[in-house]
Amino acid sequence: MENKKEITAGIIIIGNEILSGRTKDINTSTLAKWLNSLGIVVKEVRVIPDSESTIIETVNLLRNKLNYIFTTGGIGPTHDDITAESISKAFNLEYGFHKEAYSILKKYYKPGEFNEGREKMAKMPTSAKLILNPTSGAPGFYVENVFCLPGVPSILQSMIGGLNNNLIGGDPILNITISLRTVESEIAKSVTEIQNKNTEVEIGSYPFFRAGKLGVSIVLRSSNKNKLDQCKSEILKFIKSKSIEIVEEV
Amino acid sequence: MENKKEITAGIIIIGNEILSGRTKDINTSTLAKWLNSLGIVVKEVRVIPDSESTIIETVNLLRNKLNYIFTTGGIGPTHDDITAESISKAFNLEYGFHKEAYSILKKYYKPGEFNEGREKMAKMPTSAKLILNPTSGAPGFYVENVFCLPGVPSILQSMIGGLNNNLIGGDPILNITISLRTVESEIAKSVTEIQNKNTEVEIGSYPFFRAGKLGVSIVLRSSNKNKLDQCKSEILKFIKSKSIEIVEEV
Repeated sequence: MENKKEITAGIIIIGNEILSGRTKDINTSTLAKWLNSLGIVVKEVRVIPDSESTIIETVNLLRNKLNYIFTTGGIGPTHDDITAESISKAFNLEYGFHKEAYSILKKYYKPGEFNEGREKMAKMPTSAKLILNPTSGAPGFYVENVFCLPGVPSILQSMIGGLNNNLIGGDPILNITISLRTVESEIAKSVTEIQNKNTEVEIGSYPFFRAGKLGVSIVLRSSNKNKLDQCKSEILKFIKSKSIEIVEEV
Repeated sequence: MENKKEITAGIIIIGNEILSGRTKDINTSTLAKWLNSLGIVVKEVRVIPDSESTIIETVNLLRNKLNYIFTTGGIGPTHDDITAESISKAFNLEYGFHKEAYSILKKYYKPGEFNEGREKMAKMPTSAKLILNPTSGAPGFYVENVFCLPGVPSILQSMIGGLNNNLIGGDPILNITISLRTVESEIAKSVTEIQNKNTEVEIGSYPFFRAGKLGVSIVLRSSNKNKLDQCKSEILKFIKSKSIEIVEEV
């Protein structure tokens, strides 16, 4: 169990609107939490512009380095939606109407509503497999280990559950958060010592400011429950010895 | 003016808490908006783990490719704060107590409060230049074109204004957003035609769902005001011809 191979993922956020600061990306957080629950570790996120050459280069680099790649954005009906065509080029696959996607969209829209813009959403690598969209019809797709999802957060959120059976995960990554009424510098030394003794647990320390008061969240992460519990008990022992108040433990 | 060299930036978000989905990154948006206002175009954002080799590799790759690099996170007092030491190694510079930073922190804390954890925040490349922190004392720093900022959004936000005079920007990137009561597929074809005629303006199309109603925001971006205004008038003419309702124009 302990030496099980780590399963890794990368996320590629495609969109000028994120790089300009106009839109805050929340898809990374949605995807990362979901992947963690499947035992898949997100190793890298890249935000890149709506540029064909950049998409091709980034996808081809990361898909050979990590087990799974997820792209978000650029699969809608407008001129700036170039993900599907770029992925076709990255894999050197034919780009055109995907039969099943076309059929789904034709049924989804009323006669006369299935216009040129909407037809574009059926264009992708013709041999891709579809990712069904229970919210707004237009499917995502995947080729080998590259999964292409839309940028609209609520639609993306509704589509990922359908992929659970397509991904092979590792041991789920368990985590414990202990929030304390203290500041980082007061606990830094002791937490470092505990980290050095617990190498299979990743300990993070994150200051927060909530309801007018400063605090620190200690986050413990590991796929090994015994080691996680052992590390937690060391942290709790240290906290007790210093009489630090625990605000929350989850 | 029109052929002025583009000034570019990259953002490196350092932190396992972003990759695990625990924390949503909002520093990208803060930095991107600020850089845009200075005429600096963000070309790429990378989110990477608290890993020394990854930080060194990413910083060295991007600092040679782009005009400015901004890192966020990892300059606090705890064991998982490894940005300052990693940057020292990336530039092959001595890592140790920075005299000015040490002096700032010593003055900031009351006698007896300047403990080992807090002292660590004065450790960085000893030859770095400081980025002052009006919120919580501990300064950021920069080496050549790499600017290292903290991860806490409110502190980062308070520090960037002080850098305005250290950056050489290009023409500010102007933008106009026209929000419409329509869906993307209804306007896709016409907007594509307008984009093809207005190559110096970047047109983005972003669906939204606000107060129970669907809409699309058309975003025009350019550093050339005349070309931007020309493109806007073409968009407005098209909207009028289709009798599409304008929800907002900013």
